[in-house]
Amino acid sequence: MAQKLRDVEVKLMRGLLDLVILQFLRVHPMHGYQIITRIRKNFGVYFGPSTIYPLLNILEEKGFIKSQWDLSNERPRKVYGLTRDGEDLLCYTEASLNQICRKLSTIGLDKIVINGVLSNSLTTMKTSEKH
Amino acid sequence: MAQKLRDVEVKLMRGLLDLVILQFLRVHPMHGYQIITRIRKNFGVYFGPSTIYPLLNILEEKGFIKSQWDLSNERPRKVYGLTRDGEDLLCYTEASLNQICRKLSTIGLDKIVINGVLSNSLTTMKTSEKH
Repeated sequence: MAQKLRDVEVKLMRGLLDLVILQFLRVHPMHGYQIITRIRKNFGVYFGPSTIYPLLNILEEKGFIKSQWDLSNERPRKVYGLTRDGEDLLCYTEASLNQICRKLSTIGLDKIVINGVLSNSLTTMKTSEKH
Repeated sequence: MAQKLRDVEVKLMRGLLDLVILQFLRVHPMHGYQIITRIRKNFGVYFGPSTIYPLLNILEEKGFIKSQWDLSNERPRKVYGLTRDGEDLLCYTEASLNQICRKLSTIGLDKIVINGVLSNSLTTMKTSEKH
């Protein structure tokens, strides 16, 4: 069960990765490796370069972030910053996520009428799997 | 831009679809078509049978939901209910999502130190794309 729960956490984070990256970049421009490190540090979930770099490319292609070479270090690095479109997207995504969460919490307040007997038998149904 | 924003909404919902389905089934057992209808009605996003049915199969294989045939109608239907493991998963997923949202809102409170000049130039960087 512990592994299953861990999978859920990673899956949730994967679905929110755009939002997380944009939120980081709203505060400060960052290079890819910084983003990877910050995600692990802040969220306790590791997404490697093979996940993050393609995502950064997609976000840049769509015009939500923009990169610039930082040549001030020995090793040149691409630093990403949020664009105006990225800010708009971030605001919209946050609003959208809030709305989904609100709606999620109200599910069950308007009841659905289905076959009564079946409903009862299924509601009390349990798996035989051991915990 | 409107289409991009719509894409974000669908992508967000796709990442939270497990959670949404489990939440529906916590309230009442449902058959697949009911779930599809409820998602569209409550969240304004349409996910068809080709998305929902495979997801239901996976959730059942993993022991989070359990199906039973409802033969009371002319057309027999598979009705899904939440299992004990599914309840645990739902609680965990909700807690996990809440935690992610909390952490998201605190990003920016602890500042990251990077090259000052680059930071400034990137912060004010905008796309030339017309809105």
